[in-house]
Amino acid sequence: MTNALERLVEQLRRLPGIGSKSARRLAYHLVEMPQEEVDRLVETIVEAKGATRHCSICFNLSAQDPCEFCSNPNRDRTTIMVVETSRDVIAIERSGDYKGLYHVLEGALSPMEGIGADDIRVKELIARLRDGVVQEVILATDPDVEGEATALYLARLLAPSGIKVTRIARGVPVGGDIEYADELTLGGAVVNRQEMKG
Amino acid sequence: MTNALERLVEQLRRLPGIGSKSARRLAYHLVEMPQEEVDRLVETIVEAKGATRHCSICFNLSAQDPCEFCSNPNRDRTTIMVVETSRDVIAIERSGDYKGLYHVLEGALSPMEGIGADDIRVKELIARLRDGVVQEVILATDPDVEGEATALYLARLLAPSGIKVTRIARGVPVGGDIEYADELTLGGAVVNRQEMKG
Repeated sequence: MTNALERLVEQLRRLPGIGSKSARRLAYHLVEMPQEEVDRLVETIVEAKGATRHCSICFNLSAQDPCEFCSNPNRDRTTIMVVETSRDVIAIERSGDYKGLYHVLEGALSPMEGIGADDIRVKELIARLRDGVVQEVILATDPDVEGEATALYLARLLAPSGIKVTRIARGVPVGGDIEYADELTLGGAVVNRQEMKG
Repeated sequence: MTNALERLVEQLRRLPGIGSKSARRLAYHLVEMPQEEVDRLVETIVEAKGATRHCSICFNLSAQDPCEFCSNPNRDRTTIMVVETSRDVIAIERSGDYKGLYHVLEGALSPMEGIGADDIRVKELIARLRDGVVQEVILATDPDVEGEATALYLARLLAPSGIKVTRIARGVPVGGDIEYADELTLGGAVVNRQEMKG
């Protein structure tokens, strides 16, 4: 088999959620796609990569900096929802129940993987709270071990500030992944969020 | 969210086996990958697409024409194994039990999807059998409805030629997919192939 094709299989296999058999299926599909579709896909990858950056305020992925949420005067600046990834922002936005700002941690605390508070965007969150505008921080980290640990850590860290800290309701299944929650569950979880004492 | 990023999600979603959530996960992963890794992936896609073609004899995907099997003097030219896709060739080769040639149909008969004998490489197979060199045709189409129908069709079509026609043994689970069979099962299925009368 061709070297380039085998290298493509190998590189696709390293992407998240792609096993060796689906990598092969994908690679063979790509080389059999019409040339113009391959060209379009490749252009879009390059363009998306070039056009997308992390917002310097909330670290959400965006084509602009500040991102469309941070720069939108219609968003409620008194509320910040803390999430683990930009994909979570998309999921929350789909639920349509939230009108405040976001803060993307780019991860969660994980002693197992050696990820501490300095490895995620905690100090940047603290810095955003200094001007006194924010009145509520909603902790929307995943309802799994790391996400709960991160929420608890942040609740304790923020307790002295006097800012209200809430955790989204466990409408999202425990052990699950916010990114994969359906819109209704996610919408309800935001509406039913509860205050969290550190 | 950025247009290029959303277009990337949309284009990835059209690839086989990629749902809308894994398309989003993949797209976000791609734009967060280091620039040099993105460049390498894109180059490899373009290179694999440019370097890969269908062999004009057996229709296997290959960097050369004729492919490495058709042009290899050490392969047994008296036997042709008929498979549905080039991925099946890879799977059979992994089993290491087969030393003959291949013929890739590029599909299977499917009245439901309107795929008839003229839509797959049947006449090209018949043409390859005319010179009298081939003494056995091994039908290794998938053990599902379409694959069985295709095997039966080919067995009947080839019966008047006097060439021995065999079907790989049902070591592969019925309703399954040859591409996903493990190597031992696949090796055994080739060794235990049985003659098929049309």
